[in-house]
Amino acid sequence: MSVPATADGAITALLRADLRGEKPYGAPQLDVPVRLNTNESSYPVPPAVVAEITAAVAAVAPDLNRYPDREFTELRTALAAYLSSSGTAIDPAQVWAGNGSNEVLQHVVLAFGGPGRTALGFTPAYSMHPIISGSVGSTWVDGLRGQGGTPFDLTVESAVAQVRAHDPHVVFLCSPNNPTGTALGLDVVEAVYAAAERAVVVVDEAYEEFARPGRPSALTLLAGRPRLVVTRTMSKAFAFAGGRLGYLAADPALVDALRLVRLPYHLSAPTQAIALAALRHAPEMLATVEVIKEQRDRIVVGLAELGLDPVASDANFVLFGGLDDAPQTWRELLDRGVLVRDVGIPHYLRVTAGTPAETGAFLAAMAQVARPEQDRSAP
Amino acid sequence: MSVPATADGAITALLRADLRGEKPYGAPQLDVPVRLNTNESSYPVPPAVVAEITAAVAAVAPDLNRYPDREFTELRTALAAYLSSSGTAIDPAQVWAGNGSNEVLQHVVLAFGGPGRTALGFTPAYSMHPIISGSVGSTWVDGLRGQGGTPFDLTVESAVAQVRAHDPHVVFLCSPNNPTGTALGLDVVEAVYAAAERAVVVVDEAYEEFARPGRPSALTLLAGRPRLVVTRTMSKAFAFAGGRLGYLAADPALVDALRLVRLPYHLSAPTQAIALAALRHAPEMLATVEVIKEQRDRIVVGLAELGLDPVASDANFVLFGGLDDAPQTWRELLDRGVLVRDVGIPHYLRVTAGTPAETGAFLAAMAQVARPEQDRSAP
Repeated sequence: MSVPATADGAITALLRADLRGEKPYGAPQLDVPVRLNTNESSYPVPPAVVAEITAAVAAVAPDLNRYPDREFTELRTALAAYLSSSGTAIDPAQVWAGNGSNEVLQHVVLAFGGPGRTALGFTPAYSMHPIISGSVGSTWVDGLRGQGGTPFDLTVESAVAQVRAHDPHVVFLCSPNNPTGTALGLDVVEAVYAAAERAVVVVDEAYEEFARPGRPSALTLLAGRPRLVVTRTMSKAFAFAGGRLGYLAADPALVDALRLVRLPYHLSAPTQAIALAALRHAPEMLATVEVIKEQRDRIVVGLAELGLDPVASDANFVLFGGLDDAPQTWRELLDRGVLVRDVGIPHYLRVTAGTPAETGAFLAAMAQVARPEQDRSAP
Repeated sequence: MSVPATADGAITALLRADLRGEKPYGAPQLDVPVRLNTNESSYPVPPAVVAEITAAVAAVAPDLNRYPDREFTELRTALAAYLSSSGTAIDPAQVWAGNGSNEVLQHVVLAFGGPGRTALGFTPAYSMHPIISGSVGSTWVDGLRGQGGTPFDLTVESAVAQVRAHDPHVVFLCSPNNPTGTALGLDVVEAVYAAAERAVVVVDEAYEEFARPGRPSALTLLAGRPRLVVTRTMSKAFAFAGGRLGYLAADPALVDALRLVRLPYHLSAPTQAIALAALRHAPEMLATVEVIKEQRDRIVVGLAELGLDPVASDANFVLFGGLDDAPQTWRELLDRGVLVRDVGIPHYLRVTAGTPAETGAFLAAMAQVARPEQDRSAP
């Protein structure tokens, strides 16, 4: 027989207790005309970059019999140069990378969280933060947003009070925040860092390149803060989600500690070569950021015109509320060939800013299906 | 300044207690003429396969703006076909993969080990088994070999007694065993599986393609054993260490559970495409296995002629004992341009079977430096 007898119940009984009944993470991967559900770039890799990527792989392929550079030194140097180009000098010794930012986040919680330790984040934020923290045995604390009076806000006072109450070992901030879209003020980062005296403080900046003017990166806070970590990814603005390259910047001593928990040779030779090729073409890879930001702002305006409540966004997506039945709207959009994300917040959906045509298709579909939430203060 | 002030002591204090003072895993990556320390293949990827790999990346590169297939369905199908070609039919639903077998091993211990749970292996074996188990919070138990009277043996009686004594949640077997080289009898696997009633039993078969005749794979035991896992890698016989592709075969229900702990999109689009290209050329990629086995056997004979004690090997390497001072011999070989592995077993070193020329260089260097261990029974 080709498949042995399965024993689902038996396997479930062997699972770690906290995993039983859980469902795997994952947005639906559906082949529809307008995919606006995972905050990818809608723009394909330019032909010149494809050619360079291909040449880079051709150069390393003969030696694939050998393990890759475990320290990915050339890649760390290129990532440091890219980060430094924003104005804050970053040394290669401050840089670490993984197969997607999920992996560098996992390295941080493996080193500084884990069994008997607490990780705090402020919900809603990137949904992998609690999953990664919990999967390596950390106790996750779901911090609160919106304590300042506006939906999803995170004020200095609220963040500091929650840090003091929970005394975590790892704190996750997310700026611009996924799924709400808004960037944090650096005053929040500074205050959380100061209050969380024994914690590694992670600022997840996956969407930083899309931030509106006047929203500086937490990279500017690294100097003198040896417990601060800023994570980034090539999946979003860099239009490189399929290449799986996430990275972080932090104090060299903290980076060095991650070597204790990374799996050796975790970045393949082609992954390193392809990411290097893309970084050599950073201007072309990032060329669509401005047009994506325009579409994001167009979505905010268009949804407001439909009577919905879009949240101010520094990212390449917009969270919008005011829906009577968000799952129903999600399905009706899908019926029209438009895939968006139901992030599990009642009355809200999230949509990625794609091409002008995709944005047009989304807004047209929304005009057909939008049923703003009933005034629930009515009887 | 380009590098913020470091605070090594402060960072160490924040580390998980069990990681403090640990050193990162890793063999030295030194650029010497004869590299025989990490059990890579010494044979470069053939030009026809390089061309196919390059074409495969060229085909996926334009779409790197999109996330890869999270389920890597085509790759699982190809890996299942490869495993099935050895005579045991394996279904794609039984296959899982990661960036190296380290990652699939980590998925197994994340799902079935972890905090408050015990993982048992029989030392010496693959040194990442305890590191991966411990890093996700499992309690590692160092089981014993050599209880049957010969060095490094693992008998049914000894293995079963140790399983019963420790009642683990995960058991690691390794066949052919790294670093000792010898394959386990399937009777040991069967007996351990039967005795470890609540455990997931992992048979790490990274070196299986090099096994001597009459040493069947534990794949033949999967049917009817829903807790059994057989891990493999493309890093060794497949000459694909730089591509980072490890995989496993198990019951579909067990594979399904691994989705709870894998990081989403963990296999990049190029990784999937490159591995698929290599698998389409499996005969060429595996063409050097027989010549490597000949060199392995030549090493065993040659070292015995020098008065040393090589261990019988089913792998692409040989562990050899009888050295007076193994670290000294390691250094003296390095002085002669030959890099082998000091695996930390007193009086033993491990050498990879490379090309005939590399084997010749190693044996010639050994003839110069070999100083068989003094008879320690003498006063």
